[in-house]
Amino acid sequence: MKQIDGGITAVAGIRAAGLHAGIKAPDAKDVALIVTDAPATAAGVFTKNSVTAAPVLLCRDHLGDGTAQAVIVNSGNANACTGEVGMANARRMATLTAEQLGIDANLVLVSSTGVIGQQLPMDKIESGIQTAVSTLSSEGGADAAEAIMTTDTHPKSVAVEIEVGDTPVRIGGIAKGSGMIAPNMATMLSYLTTDARINAETLQAALNRVVDDTYNLLTVDTDRSTNDTVLILATGHADNAEIVTANGDDYEAFCEGLQFVCTELVKMLARDGEGATKLVEVIVKHAKNRDDAEKAARAVAESPLVKTAVFANDANWGRIMMAIGKSGAEFDPYQVDVYLADYRLVKNGMDAGYDEDEATALFAQDPVRITIDLRAGDTGITMWTCDYSYDYIRINADYRT
Amino acid sequence: MKQIDGGITAVAGIRAAGLHAGIKAPDAKDVALIVTDAPATAAGVFTKNSVTAAPVLLCRDHLGDGTAQAVIVNSGNANACTGEVGMANARRMATLTAEQLGIDANLVLVSSTGVIGQQLPMDKIESGIQTAVSTLSSEGGADAAEAIMTTDTHPKSVAVEIEVGDTPVRIGGIAKGSGMIAPNMATMLSYLTTDARINAETLQAALNRVVDDTYNLLTVDTDRSTNDTVLILATGHADNAEIVTANGDDYEAFCEGLQFVCTELVKMLARDGEGATKLVEVIVKHAKNRDDAEKAARAVAESPLVKTAVFANDANWGRIMMAIGKSGAEFDPYQVDVYLADYRLVKNGMDAGYDEDEATALFAQDPVRITIDLRAGDTGITMWTCDYSYDYIRINADYRT
Repeated sequence: MKQIDGGITAVAGIRAAGLHAGIKAPDAKDVALIVTDAPATAAGVFTKNSVTAAPVLLCRDHLGDGTAQAVIVNSGNANACTGEVGMANARRMATLTAEQLGIDANLVLVSSTGVIGQQLPMDKIESGIQTAVSTLSSEGGADAAEAIMTTDTHPKSVAVEIEVGDTPVRIGGIAKGSGMIAPNMATMLSYLTTDARINAETLQAALNRVVDDTYNLLTVDTDRSTNDTVLILATGHADNAEIVTANGDDYEAFCEGLQFVCTELVKMLARDGEGATKLVEVIVKHAKNRDDAEKAARAVAESPLVKTAVFANDANWGRIMMAIGKSGAEFDPYQVDVYLADYRLVKNGMDAGYDEDEATALFAQDPVRITIDLRAGDTGITMWTCDYSYDYIRINADYRT
Repeated sequence: MKQIDGGITAVAGIRAAGLHAGIKAPDAKDVALIVTDAPATAAGVFTKNSVTAAPVLLCRDHLGDGTAQAVIVNSGNANACTGEVGMANARRMATLTAEQLGIDANLVLVSSTGVIGQQLPMDKIESGIQTAVSTLSSEGGADAAEAIMTTDTHPKSVAVEIEVGDTPVRIGGIAKGSGMIAPNMATMLSYLTTDARINAETLQAALNRVVDDTYNLLTVDTDRSTNDTVLILATGHADNAEIVTANGDDYEAFCEGLQFVCTELVKMLARDGEGATKLVEVIVKHAKNRDDAEKAARAVAESPLVKTAVFANDANWGRIMMAIGKSGAEFDPYQVDVYLADYRLVKNGMDAGYDEDEATALFAQDPVRITIDLRAGDTGITMWTCDYSYDYIRINADYRT
């Protein structure tokens, strides 16, 4: 596997665009378009929030046949809590895009992100779609990555080339989202592309598996959005033998590549979490089972007291013990070891006699890695999060002003 | 029911003390003692955190017979994650107190609050206990309320006189805790006193019921402590007919008084939450059942995005819809109404056409009251929390320095 440039447009058959249509502040790009040169195999994973935005409902509908040819995205307005007008506007985004591209509206997927509860400015969206179609480019991945941002401080984009069988296959991805990020579809929006030949059912299986181990293990602030969406489009331009079942070497190779792309995007999202100064990896080892491992890791990764301690470079391990204790995971407190990087802070549930200066120095490492050895079983997990700083408050207190 | 002065020592048969023993910063009181003039009926509710501090284990043991005569408390050190030495120290606190008072050690309950993972400075504790016993006073409630504080900015104390039958009965209470406060024993420490005649089993039933509707519906930061403790001591000095079953008018009258005292303490705790600028009441109406009502209220009360919006006086109701949507409660998003005080922001799940200036002005009310009408059933609930401000980060980033 090797990393390559180009993001989503590193993949053959993909063109993209990103531009300013006037929804967000002057000059900020706010409309993105991703298009395949022919109907592509497609799969998606969406928010579990029962207050579901209109574009998510549309995507679920349009993905029914496992095929798509375009994704139109706006930032600055989430088109959530917008009722029938919002649903009609989401459909209109698909129709306008389809008309401009000369394809069926059912082949268009739609995403929106931004403020909840306001109707989309459809005149701006409409002219944005026209410009997007006319500026589509096989080098437009970077523009699209920028146009999907809201409070993100920089675009997130990754691409790799892997071998499936002996055939090169590419996978690219972009993502956005730095607040309202938590369990069960952590990032708000991520779009993945590949030239792999793979059928729809297997593509969906691969996406489900990888999302469970990446986006669903990312948490910034415990809040889950109304619009969370991960989509993947497979153009089939590569020469690999079509992957038609969710097992075997080819499937595993594809999942490995997808896992790498999504993990890199997840790390970028965590590092750019609202107000974040640090990427934090929380590793739980030797849990009784996956459920316990995730409970313990999540309790630490979501604890405001742990996150403020990390911000302050304070090896306040008592807060880590508190967090795993409240998690519901089964373990003996006096069997637990806790490490900062490879330095042991806690031995058998008590102070390991560590040196405060040495511990403080380890907070400068990137990522800050907290490992909790529960010694209760043989299952491990890694979660990604960030610290809580003054800027988290500033960003979210000022969001609409 | 009438509020009276004196806090826990407003109750006949109660003496208390609070003093500086040198565990915390110079001059801050850090040892509290509450004593009854004879063995009292006693009940307790404790943290569900599986990393349980030594004094909590001791209290569970000593409360086995429903009787206690003294509570010794230190702040500045939680005696948690301290292993066998910690357990021996907790026992030693009970023994030292019992010796000084000339009573059985089994009649002494112990609490600790503060930093996790350090052994208690037993020399300071020992001299603190001696001074506490020698300064016990029937007007010492205020000193005790002060001595149990950690990051609290002021002591919390309440007392009422109620009628049980036609007989006056008094209930007093103190509480501390402004961070690490969340579900299932919200406050870290609260001590309640009453002169009611009530047997141990009924006292425990009343305490369980009231804690479920007060302390367990308080949340500051989702974190649950290793040391959470609520204790009640009933001296039996009042003339009411002994309450011996958990039903009937006398029991209800007692619960009503206890509920008032605990609710007032909970509001004080929320208002003094770390960095809080506002007390926030989250009221859910017309939920399908109690579980759904609590899920929805908790999701709003614990959402960092809602809490920062409240700090910023921003009626960003989309975050409230997001929070109830992620809660798991059953409802139709397009049936939901949301109010700030009595002013409707959301009608049928969408913008009610409210005025931003009017909404902003309502954030100056105390408490800030957010009401969510789910229109899904007939159960309601009230939760208490506070906003998230810059100072939450400052306090928790600097806690150990």
